[in-house]
Amino acid sequence: MIAALIDGKKIADEIKAEVRESSEQFRAVRGIIPGLAFVLVGDNPASQSYVRMKGKACEEMGFHSVTERLPADSSEKSILDLISRFNKDTRLHGILVQLPLPKQINEEKIITAIDYRKDVDGFHPVNVGRLVLGQKCLRPCTPAGIQELLVRSGHDPAGKHVVIVGRSNIVGKPVLNILLQKQQGANAVVTIAHTGAGDLSRYTLQADILIAAMGNPGCITGLMIKPGAVVIDVGSNRIPDPVAKSGYRFTGDVDFPSAVKVAGAITPVPGGVGPMTIAMLMKNTLEAAMTLYQ
Amino acid sequence: MIAALIDGKKIADEIKAEVRESSEQFRAVRGIIPGLAFVLVGDNPASQSYVRMKGKACEEMGFHSVTERLPADSSEKSILDLISRFNKDTRLHGILVQLPLPKQINEEKIITAIDYRKDVDGFHPVNVGRLVLGQKCLRPCTPAGIQELLVRSGHDPAGKHVVIVGRSNIVGKPVLNILLQKQQGANAVVTIAHTGAGDLSRYTLQADILIAAMGNPGCITGLMIKPGAVVIDVGSNRIPDPVAKSGYRFTGDVDFPSAVKVAGAITPVPGGVGPMTIAMLMKNTLEAAMTLYQ
Repeated sequence: MIAALIDGKKIADEIKAEVRESSEQFRAVRGIIPGLAFVLVGDNPASQSYVRMKGKACEEMGFHSVTERLPADSSEKSILDLISRFNKDTRLHGILVQLPLPKQINEEKIITAIDYRKDVDGFHPVNVGRLVLGQKCLRPCTPAGIQELLVRSGHDPAGKHVVIVGRSNIVGKPVLNILLQKQQGANAVVTIAHTGAGDLSRYTLQADILIAAMGNPGCITGLMIKPGAVVIDVGSNRIPDPVAKSGYRFTGDVDFPSAVKVAGAITPVPGGVGPMTIAMLMKNTLEAAMTLYQ
Repeated sequence: MIAALIDGKKIADEIKAEVRESSEQFRAVRGIIPGLAFVLVGDNPASQSYVRMKGKACEEMGFHSVTERLPADSSEKSILDLISRFNKDTRLHGILVQLPLPKQINEEKIITAIDYRKDVDGFHPVNVGRLVLGQKCLRPCTPAGIQELLVRSGHDPAGKHVVIVGRSNIVGKPVLNILLQKQQGANAVVTIAHTGAGDLSRYTLQADILIAAMGNPGCITGLMIKPGAVVIDVGSNRIPDPVAKSGYRFTGDVDFPSAVKVAGAITPVPGGVGPMTIAMLMKNTLEAAMTLYQ
């Protein structure tokens, strides 16, 4: 048995095409162009690359975007001042502070300072709370992208047992709180396992849908997967690779060669969850624009 | 085998004694008496009885308390005005709007209007979000009480498989988000099951700790429990009882007679989770008083 590949790139392109179309209609009717601001502090190469990719997506969508670069030794106050300015700027509907921030900066304080209606990352406590309560909110991009990936690839989680490995604030916890809701594209029984679990396979082997999001390269092997299960690999681990031109390559949290022989369907890395995150960011930016200045 | 009884009344009394002592020290040092306001809309007998019990607990603690009664046909504005007044009142550190509210009132709007620092029920989106993110917050009383009950009865959830049945905003979802955290008294693998689950016993039989919180009298029978498991019954269902003087009695979501023969430990109804809710409300009120006007 060889698992079917879930093509995240293709599904992300579908979503981006929908966003572009809705955005053009919205512009025609209301005269508003969605605008997204990026805050990039320091010169972490991975962060620079992410912001570049997101900026490029904004161009594809016809969105307005600005990128503000601040030095690595910036004060908390200078970042808060910038956010305050962006909060008031009516041409901007989304504000994305690229994480991680340098050590001297309190991330919690920075994220909470963003107007939650412009929090297109869905990290503000008000958005997190509303998500849990089943209220309208901006939802975090990767978890919302995982839900879209499942539904659009024909693996509706309703009534299924979803097992998530990893309890981060940006993936594990929000995807849990999305998939357990009594809503379309959710309504799953959900288990969240993590480093405190002891033997992980006690849980992973139960999964109809297994979501690996612990940031541990190749940790989930074929032996830990129930035959026929759907496997979503959220890992994006940069590991050294002397053969690659760059000297490294990206690998997931799932050991693909053994998993592909057991799973029924699986996302590749790269080309699985990654592209979905950017597509959902575009969707959130349009949504913020549509609701913010009505 | 007969399960050990987990005595919620006794543990709640321990917590209330601790709260009273800390409160007296706080008063001696800072001159502040914790104050709690109750908002009771309409004349639902159960709501009246709950508010009476909570008010009595405030008296025991030596707290200041006020109860504002509004008619069932009150407007949303009149409740919002009252909350706005309580938000500003420096003698009050907690505001509790007894739910459910009459149909013409938007509960979400009312709860969100409470200053989240006075939200001793822990229902405000900011508190819910912070809870999920692992940040300091006021935590909902019943879920926090369940955690205390487990820890103080010698059943630390760390490393255990906790299965919750029921996904309400006031019990299932918050107890899930408390017990999965990498924190003392938590760090459990948690599964949340519900009406969308199909056969519930597929999940309940896996539980080292089973939390029944679906509001379905006697739904969890002994056959659905793993031998030796810890069973927490959050149900408090009023059912007719011709033998009782009042004409009704309270029963849990667990079928006690069959469960007690299989479980290792179990909470009774009444006298299990119920008393914990009020004890934790007192604890939250003291905590709000200690942090609010520093």
